[in-house]
Amino acid sequence: MPEVVTLGETMVLMNPESSGPLKYISQFTKQIGGAESNFAIGVVRLGRSAGWISRLGNDEFGKYVLSFIQGEGVDTSQVKFDVSAPTGLYFKERREYGESKVYYYRKDSAASRMSPADLDADYIGSAKILHISGITPALSESCHQTIKEAIAIAKRRGVAICLDPNIRLKLWEKDRARQVIMELAASSDIILPGVSEGEILLGETDPGKIAAQFLALGVQKVVVKLGKKGAYYATPTEHKLVRGYLIDKVVDPIGAGDGFAAGFIAGLLKGYPMEEAVKLGNAVGAMATTVIGDVEGLPTMDEVAVFRGYKEGVDR
Amino acid sequence: MPEVVTLGETMVLMNPESSGPLKYISQFTKQIGGAESNFAIGVVRLGRSAGWISRLGNDEFGKYVLSFIQGEGVDTSQVKFDVSAPTGLYFKERREYGESKVYYYRKDSAASRMSPADLDADYIGSAKILHISGITPALSESCHQTIKEAIAIAKRRGVAICLDPNIRLKLWEKDRARQVIMELAASSDIILPGVSEGEILLGETDPGKIAAQFLALGVQKVVVKLGKKGAYYATPTEHKLVRGYLIDKVVDPIGAGDGFAAGFIAGLLKGYPMEEAVKLGNAVGAMATTVIGDVEGLPTMDEVAVFRGYKEGVDR
Amino acid sequence: MPEVVTLGETMVLMNPESSGPLKYISQFTKQIGGAESNFAIGVVRLGRSAGWISRLGNDEFGKYVLSFIQGEGVDTSQVKFDVSAPTGLYFKERREYGESKVYYYRKDSAASRMSPADLDADYIGSAKILHISGITPALSESCHQTIKEAIAIAKRRGVAICLDPNIRLKLWEKDRARQVIMELAASSDIILPGVSEGEILLGETDPGKIAAQFLALGVQKVVVKLGKKGAYYATPTEHKLVRGYLIDKVVDPIGAGDGFAAGFIAGLLKGYPMEEAVKLGNAVGAMATTVIGDVEGLPTMDEVAVFRGYKEGVDR
Amino acid sequence: MPEVVTLGETMVLMNPESSGPLKYISQFTKQIGGAESNFAIGVVRLGRSAGWISRLGNDEFGKYVLSFIQGEGVDTSQVKFDVSAPTGLYFKERREYGESKVYYYRKDSAASRMSPADLDADYIGSAKILHISGITPALSESCHQTIKEAIAIAKRRGVAICLDPNIRLKLWEKDRARQVIMELAASSDIILPGVSEGEILLGETDPGKIAAQFLALGVQKVVVKLGKKGAYYATPTEHKLVRGYLIDKVVDPIGAGDGFAAGFIAGLLKGYPMEEAVKLGNAVGAMATTVIGDVEGLPTMDEVAVFRGYKEGVDR
Amino acid sequence: MPEVVTLGETMVLMNPESSGPLKYISQFTKQIGGAESNFAIGVVRLGRSAGWISRLGNDEFGKYVLSFIQGEGVDTSQVKFDVSAPTGLYFKERREYGESKVYYYRKDSAASRMSPADLDADYIGSAKILHISGITPALSESCHQTIKEAIAIAKRRGVAICLDPNIRLKLWEKDRARQVIMELAASSDIILPGVSEGEILLGETDPGKIAAQFLALGVQKVVVKLGKKGAYYATPTEHKLVRGYLIDKVVDPIGAGDGFAAGFIAGLLKGYPMEEAVKLGNAVGAMATTVIGDVEGLPTMDEVAVFRGYKEGVDR
Amino acid sequence: MPEVVTLGETMVLMNPESSGPLKYISQFTKQIGGAESNFAIGVVRLGRSAGWISRLGNDEFGKYVLSFIQGEGVDTSQVKFDVSAPTGLYFKERREYGESKVYYYRKDSAASRMSPADLDADYIGSAKILHISGITPALSESCHQTIKEAIAIAKRRGVAICLDPNIRLKLWEKDRARQVIMELAASSDIILPGVSEGEILLGETDPGKIAAQFLALGVQKVVVKLGKKGAYYATPTEHKLVRGYLIDKVVDPIGAGDGFAAGFIAGLLKGYPMEEAVKLGNAVGAMATTVIGDVEGLPTMDEVAVFRGYKEGVDR
Repeated sequence: MPEVVTLGETMVLMNPESSGPLKYISQFTKQIGGAESNFAIGVVRLGRSAGWISRLGNDEFGKYVLSFIQGEGVDTSQVKFDVSAPTGLYFKERREYGESKVYYYRKDSAASRMSPADLDADYIGSAKILHISGITPALSESCHQTIKEAIAIAKRRGVAICLDPNIRLKLWEKDRARQVIMELAASSDIILPGVSEGEILLGETDPGKIAAQFLALGVQKVVVKLGKKGAYYATPTEHKLVRGYLIDKVVDPIGAGDGFAAGFIAGLLKGYPMEEAVKLGNAVGAMATTVIGDVEGLPTMDEVAVFRGYKEGVDR
Repeated sequence: MPEVVTLGETMVLMNPESSGPLKYISQFTKQIGGAESNFAIGVVRLGRSAGWISRLGNDEFGKYVLSFIQGEGVDTSQVKFDVSAPTGLYFKERREYGESKVYYYRKDSAASRMSPADLDADYIGSAKILHISGITPALSESCHQTIKEAIAIAKRRGVAICLDPNIRLKLWEKDRARQVIMELAASSDIILPGVSEGEILLGETDPGKIAAQFLALGVQKVVVKLGKKGAYYATPTEHKLVRGYLIDKVVDPIGAGDGFAAGFIAGLLKGYPMEEAVKLGNAVGAMATTVIGDVEGLPTMDEVAVFRGYKEGVDR
Repeated sequence: MPEVVTLGETMVLMNPESSGPLKYISQFTKQIGGAESNFAIGVVRLGRSAGWISRLGNDEFGKYVLSFIQGEGVDTSQVKFDVSAPTGLYFKERREYGESKVYYYRKDSAASRMSPADLDADYIGSAKILHISGITPALSESCHQTIKEAIAIAKRRGVAICLDPNIRLKLWEKDRARQVIMELAASSDIILPGVSEGEILLGETDPGKIAAQFLALGVQKVVVKLGKKGAYYATPTEHKLVRGYLIDKVVDPIGAGDGFAAGFIAGLLKGYPMEEAVKLGNAVGAMATTVIGDVEGLPTMDEVAVFRGYKEGVDR
Repeated sequence: MPEVVTLGETMVLMNPESSGPLKYISQFTKQIGGAESNFAIGVVRLGRSAGWISRLGNDEFGKYVLSFIQGEGVDTSQVKFDVSAPTGLYFKERREYGESKVYYYRKDSAASRMSPADLDADYIGSAKILHISGITPALSESCHQTIKEAIAIAKRRGVAICLDPNIRLKLWEKDRARQVIMELAASSDIILPGVSEGEILLGETDPGKIAAQFLALGVQKVVVKLGKKGAYYATPTEHKLVRGYLIDKVVDPIGAGDGFAAGFIAGLLKGYPMEEAVKLGNAVGAMATTVIGDVEGLPTMDEVAVFRGYKEGVDR
Repeated sequence: MPEVVTLGETMVLMNPESSGPLKYISQFTKQIGGAESNFAIGVVRLGRSAGWISRLGNDEFGKYVLSFIQGEGVDTSQVKFDVSAPTGLYFKERREYGESKVYYYRKDSAASRMSPADLDADYIGSAKILHISGITPALSESCHQTIKEAIAIAKRRGVAICLDPNIRLKLWEKDRARQVIMELAASSDIILPGVSEGEILLGETDPGKIAAQFLALGVQKVVVKLGKKGAYYATPTEHKLVRGYLIDKVVDPIGAGDGFAAGFIAGLLKGYPMEEAVKLGNAVGAMATTVIGDVEGLPTMDEVAVFRGYKEGVDR
Repeated sequence: MPEVVTLGETMVLMNPESSGPLKYISQFTKQIGGAESNFAIGVVRLGRSAGWISRLGNDEFGKYVLSFIQGEGVDTSQVKFDVSAPTGLYFKERREYGESKVYYYRKDSAASRMSPADLDADYIGSAKILHISGITPALSESCHQTIKEAIAIAKRRGVAICLDPNIRLKLWEKDRARQVIMELAASSDIILPGVSEGEILLGETDPGKIAAQFLALGVQKVVVKLGKKGAYYATPTEHKLVRGYLIDKVVDPIGAGDGFAAGFIAGLLKGYPMEEAVKLGNAVGAMATTVIGDVEGLPTMDEVAVFRGYKEGVDR
C-alpha cells in the first residue's frame, strides 16, 4: 500500500509545436497533464511510494494516460475505466505576453464522473498522507462528494490530509471556489497555497498573515509558495522564510507547484524537519522548470544532490 | 448570392502522423473536417459559387476553420461565432484492418447550437440548390429544427433541395436516423445515397430498387453511389449505371462522397444532362481519393480534363 | 468596396527550420511574405475592410498565396493569374550576428508584370486610402508605371495616398531608390519612414528634421518609426513623440513595420486623433514581433485591449 | 506473482524515419526492442500476468526501457540496474529488397552481465510457465549460465518451460547456436520454432518432421510457425495444421513471432485446447504486423474478437 | 585525372513531404538534383573515377551542391563559382495519377552561364569517356556552345563520347530539341536513348529500328532503355535484348536512367563485354528506384552482387 | 599534400531534438563529431589545405562520416575502413543547469584500432604542421602508440607539432591523462590549453604561469584559451592577452576550441604574427558558437571579415 494517496483528473495534453495563436499552429504533440499525477510521479521519483485514484475513458487516450503514470512507478490499481465517457483533453497556447491560455475539452469527461463509490477505504486508510487539490471539487458535484468522502475516510483512519488549493478560475466562479476550498482547508492538516491563492481565499497577500489565518483554522503545517523567492512555512511552533533556487533560464514554469508539493511531502515522509522539507520542495520545484513538460524535469534524490551542490556551491 | 447554399458543422481534425492505435502516436496535424464545407469547396473549385452556413466557437479553432473555408472562395458571410461554446474537434485513428475510428469531442459544440433563427430566408431563397446532409439533424434538436426550417424556406422560394444522407451511427440510433432522414428525403428533390445507406433507410441493397423507392416518395433525381463501380442514377424518365474511374492507389478514401456530390451538383449547375453530371461526380469523387485530406484532392475543371483524358485514353 | 486598397507583390517564403547557413539546413516551411498583403491583413483583423491588387503565377504557389490572403478576409477580387510567369519565391537565412539574409527567386515573377492596365479606377476610386510601398516600383518598369497610375487615379478621385518607403537595397541602386521614392513622396498625403530610410532619402536621422522635410514637400501626415522607442509624428499643426511598448522577448522582428502601418491606418479610419492612431500603430507593431511569421501576430482590437491593459498597467 | 516469467535483454532501438541506407537518413526515433519483453507485454494485454527479468544500464536509456515495460503492466520487480555497463542499443535499416539489417551497439551491455545470482528461485518457482529464447545464451557466457540456472529452478519447482529458438546469426556461429539451443530444447516442455530454425537445428524443413524430432527429444508441445500459412502443432497425442489470417498490407513483420508466442501461451493459460491456443497465436501474430513497432499492434482480447470476426466472416 | 568526365547543371531540389498539390504542402526537404552529377556519383560508387564540370552560384546553395558531390568522391576541381547568378532551384510535385510535375526556378542560373572558356582541354582530354546529356544544350546558347566545344576537344583527343538524350520538353520546343540532339548524336560513340526519346528523335518506337538508325549515323554502341523490361543493345557486330530486374516496390523511379548510364559505363571501363555492361546498367538502374532520392540508392559493387544474387536466385 | 595533417576519431553524433533527460526525448538527428576533423574543416574553410587520418567502420555510419569530411574539402586519402569494428557513436544530453552529458558507444570502435602501421611517413612528412589532441591516446594503447609514432615522424621530418590537450575525463583517469599529455607536450612546438586544462596538467590557473611552465618544457608557442575573455599567448620572446569577441547569444558552445585552433593555425600558415593569428583564432572560435553544430558555424575568410567589421565597429 502506498505511503501517499492522491486523486484527481489527468488529461491528454495537446502541446503546440511553437508559441503563438493556435490558428496558425499545425503540429501538436500528445502528452499528459494532471496536477495530482504530477505530484505522485514526483514523490515516486524521490524514492517514496504513491498511489493515484482516478477514472479514465475506455479509449486510446485513457490507455495512454494509464501506461504513462504506471510506467513511472505510481500505483494505479485504483484507477477505473469508464465505458460511457471520454478521457479529458486540453490544448495549451503559449503567448509571449500575458498568461498562456488553455482550451479545455473536459466537460463530462470520465474523471468528472468519479463518485464516492470509487473509493476503497482500506486503500486510503493505509496511507500516511492523503493529497488533494482544489481542482477536483470543481469538476462536478460527484467529484466534490468524492473529495469529501476521501477526507472523511482519512479522518476516520488517522491519515494526514494535505491540500494544494490549485484554484482554476476557468472551472468555476471565484466565490464558489473560495467557499468550497475553505471548507476543505478547515479539514486539512497541511496546506500549500500560493500568494495569489491566499488573496482569493483570505484577501491576504502577506505570507505571515496567510499562514496565521490557516493556523487559526486548525491547519498544522502551512507553506506559502513564493515562486522564485522560495517559500514561507509556519506551524503552531515555528515559522521561517526559506530562500529558493534561482534558475538561469526557466524553460517551462508549469509543474513547479506540483514539484514543490512532491518535494515537500517526500521530505516529510523521510522525516526531515520542516525547513529541510521545504528546501527539498524548493529544489524540486525549481528543477521542474528546467525542462519542457510537467514531469520530465522531476528529479531523483541523486539529481537533487547534484543540483543543490551546483547551486549552493560551498555546501556541496 | 451563391448558387448553392449548404449548412452543417465543420470541426478541427487532429490527424495522427501514422496509422495504428492513438495510444502510441505522439504527433498530430491540425486540419479541418466537415462534409458540407468539403462539398462547398468542391463546388467552388469547379467554377460555381457556394455558401456555407454554420456556427463556430469564438476561439482560435473557429478562426482557423473560417479562414480555411473562406480562403477557398466559399461565401462565409452567414457564419456566426458563438462565445459560449467551443468549436468541435475530432481525432482519426487509421487501422490496417476493419474500419478507421473517430474520437469526437463535439458534444455541445458551437455548431450543435445552430437554430432556425440563424437562417436568412433571402440568402437561402436566392440560391438554386440547398444542399443538406443527414449529419446535421443528428447533432441536436435545434440543429434538426434548423434543417427543417431551411427546407421550409427552400420549398417556399422554389429552391431545389439535395440530400446526402451521410448516416453517422456514432451520433444517433439507427432507428432514429432512419425516421428523420426518411422525412428529409420526402421533402427532397435530389438524393445521393450509398448502397449501405439504402440498406439502412429502405432495407434494400439493389441500386434499382433503392432508386425506385425514392422516386416513389417524390424525389426527382436519385443517384446511388457505388464506390469504385461508379454510380446508378434514376429520374422519372431515365436511369443508367455510369461506370467509375479506377484509381491505382487510393491514398485516402475519405471525402470521395463529398467530392461526388460537388461534381454532380456542379454538373447540374452547368446544365449538363444527368449522365454527364454523374460522370463529373465520378471523376471528382475518384480524384478526391488520390490525396491525403478531404479537400486537397478536389480538382478544378482543368484538372478534371487532364484526369479524364488520362483515364479515358482514346476518348480524349 | 474596401476602405483601404493596396497593391504589391506577395511571394512564397521558404523559412528554414533553424538559424545558421542554409548550406546545413535541410527542412524548410512554406509561408507567404509581402509587405502590402501583411498590411491589408492587419487592417482587416482590426475590423476595417481592405483590398489587395496583384498578379500571381497560375501555379500551386499562386493558388496558395491567394487562399491565404483571401482566408484572412482581404478582398482579392482584383488579383490576376498570369499563365506565363511564376509566383515569386524567397528564402530567409537567420544569423545570430549581423543582419539576416534573403535569397530571392523573384526575377521576372508574375507580380513583376503588373501593368497600369491591371488597375480598375472605380475600385481604387471608391476607397478612402490607397496604401503603396517603395518595393513595387523596384520590381520592374511596368510596376513603376502601375504605381504611378494608381497614384494618378487616387489623386483624381480624392483618395488619400499613404506611402511606406520600405527601401530594399537588394532590388535597386540607392540613388535610383531615392529618386523614385522621393517622387512618390511628393504625391503622398501620408508617409511612414523609418530613421534609416530618412537617412537614405533625405540625409537626415533626426525625426523632427525628417518630418519637417516631408511636410515641406506637401505631405500632410508624417510618422517616423523609431523601433522600440515608438514613433514621432508631425502634421502641419502638431507633432509629438509617442512612446512604444517594450516586448520582453522579440521572437521575430519582421513585420513590425507593416503592423505599425496597419494599426495607424486602421486608427485613422476609426477617426482616432493622430496620437491615438500612432499608439495603435505602436501596439500592433510590437505585438507582431511576439510571434514567428509576418502576420501570425497581428491582433484583433480585443487582443490589442488585452495587450495595452497588460503593458500600461494602471491605464487598464 | 506473475503466471508467466521471462528473461532477456531489451535494447533501445533507433528507428530511421524512412527506408534506405542509413548514410542518408538524418532523423531517428527512439523506441525499444526485445523479444522477451514483447512477449511479456503481449501476454499482459491479453489479460494474463507476466514478469520480465533483466539488467539495464543505470542511464537514461535504462530508465526509459523500464518505464515503457512497466507502463504496459508487466511486473518489473526483478529488473536490476547496472552502474558499470550501458543499456544496449541498435539501429534498424529497412531496404526494399533482401533482408533488413541491424547495427548492434550491445557488446558488454548491462544485460550481457546477467548472472545466475540475479535469479530469485521463489519468483520463478511461483510461475506456471518460464518463457526463454535462444537470444539470451548468445549474449555472454554468464547469460548462458543464467538461462541454465533458470531452467534448473523451473525443473525443480515444476514450472513448464517454453522455448522460442529466436536464432540470431549476427550474435554467434551457427554450429554453436545449434548446440546450445538443442540443449535448451531437450529441457523444454514447449518449443515454438520457425521452419528456417527447424532447418538450422535439425536439418529439416517439413513441419511434421521437425515436430516429430522435438517430440522424440521429450518436448510435450511443438508448434512450428509457418508465417502467413499459419502454424502446425503436434503433441504426443494430436497434430494439426491451423490456417493463419491473411493481412492485406503487412506494415511491419517484426514482432509477429513474439506475438504468436504471447497469444499461444495466453491461450494455454486460459485453458484453451491446443488448436484454439494456436489460433489465438495466429491472430495475435498477424495483428502485430499491422502496425509499425514490435508491441504497438499487440491486441487485447476485445480487439482479437473484432479482428477474428472481421477475418472469419460467417464464423462470427 | 578521372576516367570519365561529365558536365551539366545540378540544382537544389526542394522535395515536398508528401504527394499532392504543393498548395497544401507545408514542409520541404532540401536535396540536390542533376542528371550528370547523379551519373558521376554512380560511377564513383562502382569503383571508377569521375569528374564533374559545372558552374554554381556563389551562395549557400552552391556550397551545398559542391559539398555533396565532392563528398561522394567525384572530382570537382573544374567547378566554378559565379558571383552574379544564383544556383538553380526546383520543386517536385508528386501526383498519384498522370506524371509528376516540376516547378523550375533556374532561368539565368549560374550553370546556364557555362561557356566554352570554362573547359580545360587537358582535363577532358585525359579521360577515357566524355558523358553528356541533352539537358545542357537546352539551358542557354552558351551552354550549347560549351557542349559543342567539349565534343570537339574529345574528338581531337580521342576520348569516346557518350550521349544520354534526356529530353526535357519543359526546357525547349520539341523540334529544336530533336535538331540539336540529333547533331550531338551524330558526333557520339555511344548513345543511351529511351523508347519515347526514340520516338521524338526518330519517329520510331521499335528498339531494333531505333538502334539501326543510330548505327547508321555512325554511333558505335546503342543501348535502348526499356524500363522494367531491361535494355536492348546493338553494335555494328552484335545485338541483344537483356532482361531487367523486377523490383517489387518501386519507391522512386527518378534516377533510374542515370543509374543505368553509370552502371553501363562503369562496366565498359571495367572491360566487360557489352551484354555484361548492360546487365550492370540494368541492375544499377533497378536498385536506384528502391530508395527515395536520385543517388541514395546507387550501389557499390558489393551491393550489386548481393542484389543480383537475390534476384537471380540459382545464378548466385 | 596538405599543409596541416591531423589524426583522431570522428563519431556519429545522435543529437536530441530538445534539452532535458534523454528518457523523454523521442527524436534524434544524426550528425558527426570529432575534434580533429572539426579542426581540419575549419582550416580548409579559411583557405588552407588539411588532411585527416583515421579509421572508420565499414558500415553506413563510416561512409557518412567520410562523405561529410571529404565534402568539406579535407583530404581523406589516408582514412582506412575497418571491416571488423563499428564506427563510434555518441549521444548528447543538454541540461539547463550543470554540464551537458555525453553517452558514448565507442568502446572497441574502428578508430580505437588505429595503429602505427596506419601512418604514411611521407604524408605526414610533407606537411608544415601536425595537429594532435589529447583524446586520441585515451582511446586505446594502439592509438597511444600511433600518436607517438606520428610525433616521431614529424620530428624526423621537421614538421611542427601542435597539441590541443582536449582532456576528456570520461575516457581515462586524471593521473594517467596528465602523465600522457605532459609527455606529448614535451615533444610539441605549439600547445593550446584551456585554463582548466592548465589546472589538471600543471596545477596552475594563472595564464602567465601556465605559459611559463610549457615554455620551460621547450614548447615554442603557448596559447592559453580564456573563453569569452579571449586568449593569452606567450613565446620565448613575447606575450600578450588578446581580447575575445562577445557573442550576444551563444547558441552552441561546443566547437569553440576547435574553431580557435583552426583559426590560429590558419593564421600561422598565412604568415600572420602571433597576435594576429590569435585574433583570427578568437574570431573563428566565437563564430563557431553562433550556430548549432560543431562545424556549421566555421567561417570563410570573407565571413570573418564581415564579423570582425561588425564587432570591431570603427575598425571596419
